[in-house]
Order: sequence, then C-alpha cells, then structure tokens
Amino acid sequence: MREFELLRHIYDANAGLGDDIAIPPGDDMAMIRLAGRDLLAAVDQVVDGRHVRLETTPLALIGRKAVTRSLSDIAAMAARPVGALVAVVLPPDFGADRAEALFDAMRATAAEYDCPLIGGDIAFHGDASHPLTCSVTVLAEPVNGRAITRAGAEVDDIVYVTGALGGAVLEDGGGRHLTFEPRIAEAIQLAAALGPNLHAMIDLSDGLGRDASHIAEASNVQVVIEAAQIPCSAGVDWRAAAAGGEDYELLFTARGDVPTSLTGGLAVTPIGRVSPRRGEDGSMVVFHDGEQIIPGDELGWQHES
Amino acid sequence: MREFELLRHIYDANAGLGDDIAIPPGDDMAMIRLAGRDLLAAVDQVVDGRHVRLETTPLALIGRKAVTRSLSDIAAMAARPVGALVAVVLPPDFGADRAEALFDAMRATAAEYDCPLIGGDIAFHGDASHPLTCSVTVLAEPVNGRAITRAGAEVDDIVYVTGALGGAVLEDGGGRHLTFEPRIAEAIQLAAALGPNLHAMIDLSDGLGRDASHIAEASNVQVVIEAAQIPCSAGVDWRAAAAGGEDYELLFTARGDVPTSLTGGLAVTPIGRVSPRRGEDGSMVVFHDGEQIIPGDELGWQHES
Repeated sequence: MREFELLRHIYDANAGLGDDIAIPPGDDMAMIRLAGRDLLAAVDQVVDGRHVRLETTPLALIGRKAVTRSLSDIAAMAARPVGALVAVVLPPDFGADRAEALFDAMRATAAEYDCPLIGGDIAFHGDASHPLTCSVTVLAEPVNGRAITRAGAEVDDIVYVTGALGGAVLEDGGGRHLTFEPRIAEAIQLAAALGPNLHAMIDLSDGLGRDASHIAEASNVQVVIEAAQIPCSAGVDWRAAAAGGEDYELLFTARGDVPTSLTGGLAVTPIGRVSPRRGEDGSMVVFHDGEQIIPGDELGWQHES
Repeated sequence: MREFELLRHIYDANAGLGDDIAIPPGDDMAMIRLAGRDLLAAVDQVVDGRHVRLETTPLALIGRKAVTRSLSDIAAMAARPVGALVAVVLPPDFGADRAEALFDAMRATAAEYDCPLIGGDIAFHGDASHPLTCSVTVLAEPVNGRAITRAGAEVDDIVYVTGALGGAVLEDGGGRHLTFEPRIAEAIQLAAALGPNLHAMIDLSDGLGRDASHIAEASNVQVVIEAAQIPCSAGVDWRAAAAGGEDYELLFTARGDVPTSLTGGLAVTPIGRVSPRRGEDGSMVVFHDGEQIIPGDELGWQHES
C-alpha cells in the first residue's frame, strides 16, 4: 500500500468538486476560491483507544466521526463549510482495503455536509501496535458576515440547548458519539432567525458543564442552569447529562423569540440564564436543583480533561 | 498536564497576532481576514520513528521540522503564509515541560515565517509506547493572484534546482532535514523575477527523481536531467542526490533569464530540460550520464514510498 495510490484513490473519487476549487488536491497545496474575505479554521483529532476503538468500531464510523467532530466546530460558529484536510497515521499492517474504506467514509461524510476534502496526508507507523490517528482540519466561511463566538453572552440572556444530552458514549464504545449529525444547518437556521439576538454559541463536546463554563469564561459572566430543565436522554439523570461529553448539540445564549424546534424537528430547550460573574474565583457555572444551589466546581467534572 | 492549559500556554504566547486575526485561537474556530479571495491549504505530518527520532532529536528541532515541512509546501506554490493549525498526539507520560517546549518550537518557527498558529488540538495516547505525532495544516495566499503548480511545465523549458541536494538525512537521524529553511522568500523572489516565464514548481521532499516525475506527470511531459549538472552536497554522488529525499529545495521549470542566485546567496542551477512525453508508458524522468541514457524507472527509487 502506498501513500500516493491511496491519495489518488481519494482524489479520483472527488470528481464532483465544485468550481470554487481552483487547484484540486494533488498539487503541493489545493486552492479554493472563497465568497468572502473571512476564513474560519479549526483542527480536531480522533485517536484509536481514546476516541474510537478500532477493534470493535466499524471503519465507516471511525472515518465518519473523524470528520463530524471537526464539522461540529463549524456548527458552533453558525458557519458554512468550505473544505477539509485530513492527515492519517496508519499501523503498517493496516492494509489498502481498510485504508480505502476509512478514506471513503471520511470523504462521503465531508461531502454530505458540502465540505469537500481538499487535502490529505498519509503516514505509516513503525510498529503494528501503534494506534490509528486521524486529524481533520476544517475551513469555513461566516454566513452573512458574522460568526458566533463563545464571547458574546450578556447578563439576562436565556441559555438554550438543542436535542437531548447524556449517554452519548456507551460502555462498549458504541453510541451516539459515532453517529451524531453536526448541527450545521440548524445553527445557520438559528443565526438567521435570531439575527443580533443570538449572542454566544458552542458545540457540546466536553459536556454541558465544561462547555457552559467555556462560554462563561469567554464572556466574563456566570451561567445558571436549572437542572430540572436539562433535556436528558432516556435513562440519564441530570448530573450524568451535565458531566457526559460528546453530545455535539448546540449550547447558546440569546434574547427574544427563540424557535422551540428547528428543521427536522430538533428540539430547542431553555435551560437557564446568564448572570453577572461572582468575583474572580466564583464558579463559572451554577446548577439550581430544586432548593439546592450547586456550584459546577463541586460536580467533579471541572478539572477533568 | 491538561490540553486546556497547554493550548492556553500556546495562545498566550501568541500576543503578537496581527490585525487580520479577526477571532483569535481559543474559540471553536479562529477567523482570519484574507487580502484576496483565493486560499491555499495543505497538511503534512511528522511521526516519531518515521520522520524524527524522539530519543535523540532535540524537541526544538522536532517542533521546527513539523512546521517547516508544511511551510515548504507554501514555498512550492510561491505563496505567502497566512496561518497554521497544529494537531499533536502525545504519549501519556510526555510531561508538561516537554509539551511546552515542543509547542514553543512550533510557534516560534511558524512566527519566523510570518505564519501565526491559529488553531491547535492536543490528544494523548493510551500507552507510553505510542509515538508522538504532529500534523500541521498551513494556509496561504497566492502572491499577485498566481500560485505556481506542478502542472505548467512546457516542452523546451529549462529545469532548475536551488541549493545542493543529497545527504539531508544522516544515519544517526540528524542532518539538514531537521534544520532546513523553507524557500518561501526565494520562491516569491523567483515568481516576481520570472513572471509568466515561471511555469511549474515543486519542493523536493520525496527526492529529485520522484519529485521531477510529479511535475512530469502533472504537466504530461518528460523531464530530462543532466546528471553532471546536479548540484550535489559534499561527498554525495548524483545517484544518491537524485534518490535522497528531504532536501526541501525548489525544483522548477522556466523560460527566459533566470537568476543564478537568490537573496542570501542561494544558488540556482540549470539541471535539464523538458521534453515531449514518450508514449503512455515512457519513463517520466530520464537521466543523461555522459553517453548513458538512464530511465528513472531503473534507478530503484521510482516505486518506493
């Protein structure tokens, strides 16, 4: 199996690349023609044994997750994908058929979200025990000139979340973290519906508690969450839903009339409110559970990584 | 050691980011403001045991090479860097000090070439025996609206190479492949001096023979190289110089008055000529050695990867 043949296999299947790909993959760099002058970029990774389990997870789902994890960052900015670059390190005995299956899944997933693969690199480990690693860089453009950051939350905003949280990673390694849909269309729909009333947004990869604290920190506010309002997956209590990661739903703060559901029926649930920050050392996130007020710091997830 | 702290360390040191970074690293995506509407992108990787040796190579040089390998792709297009994203997978026992040293080297190297780090991801392996992996995505803009591809070589172009070739990787793992300077400024200088007479260009990562065949294939021509004219590093014969990789010099085809040296005194040496392609199965690259005509196919490097 050779890198050159594998990359050619990928790029040949790329025949449907749009007119905005001015230099297709295969040269030293690909070139894309952008509509605007602002470009968003992010990179994320999937490592065997950490984010997926090669022994039990179908290659199609590993390739899918490698791409959707990064696409979810585009959703978080309410942006439009323009292209992706993938870099993969394979164990030396991986085999051409499996490598092609992995790349086919990555390309198909990217294409599903109008995000053509415009670049790639394949390297091989020195030892068969070394783990498969996929890094995926995504490029995107803001829609109508505006990207939604984590930093815009204002006191008295309402805090919303899409979908249902918790239970995304099952004990056997399976679960929704392999099959989730990045909320790109839904985020763009929200930004269009809310305009300047959409203040801050993030995708839930680290878990509701930690990701809410990222918004709070970036915006210099406190996020207060009503535990009873968190939309939990079946069989998951609110503490597990707040601590669990890899939901890849949207968490945002806004004013005004927020739709209660989005295209495809995705629920939008108000779960809390933005408050002034309580001093330098105050908890960034607080949960109200009936009469109890529980600082996020005490829930045990704050200092995990 | 936590990813969040490490990334913060990187981004804090990024204080000198220019005004064209509209959203600095630390949000779901960074945003850069481009001068033009065309964007170039490529990704490359450095894996311990394959491209570097963690046991013997200083971390500063590993970080440097991870970035310069990708910057060399920008040189190959005669383009201007706009930003880089790095994704690293570390062994679990790597330690915060070494991780910071690695990232400091990557950031300093990128900054040296006016290519700010605008995004990053850090993941950890499950086992201490798993190798360090760095993938670096680079973004660039064409200069004066034109990127130089591999596909523009024309029959009767003269073929040139910068610097001296061969011996870049020493037996002990050291050598010029760790310390080379990506030829970005020199490539831009060439494009400015030659204008439309600069037809095709590539950086020499796979070795002169293989990289010349990449130009030949993309341009549908044959490249004929005069062995005696190849500028070889001290103690390297032409066959080793043609087969060796990781020179990261420029190989290009052009017409007209080509400078014999570039800024800093880098030599530019004519080494051959572009010929019509000899049928579908003809060798893409041919070497003239005195009276001998040697198809590149017979030199043994053609089918390595």
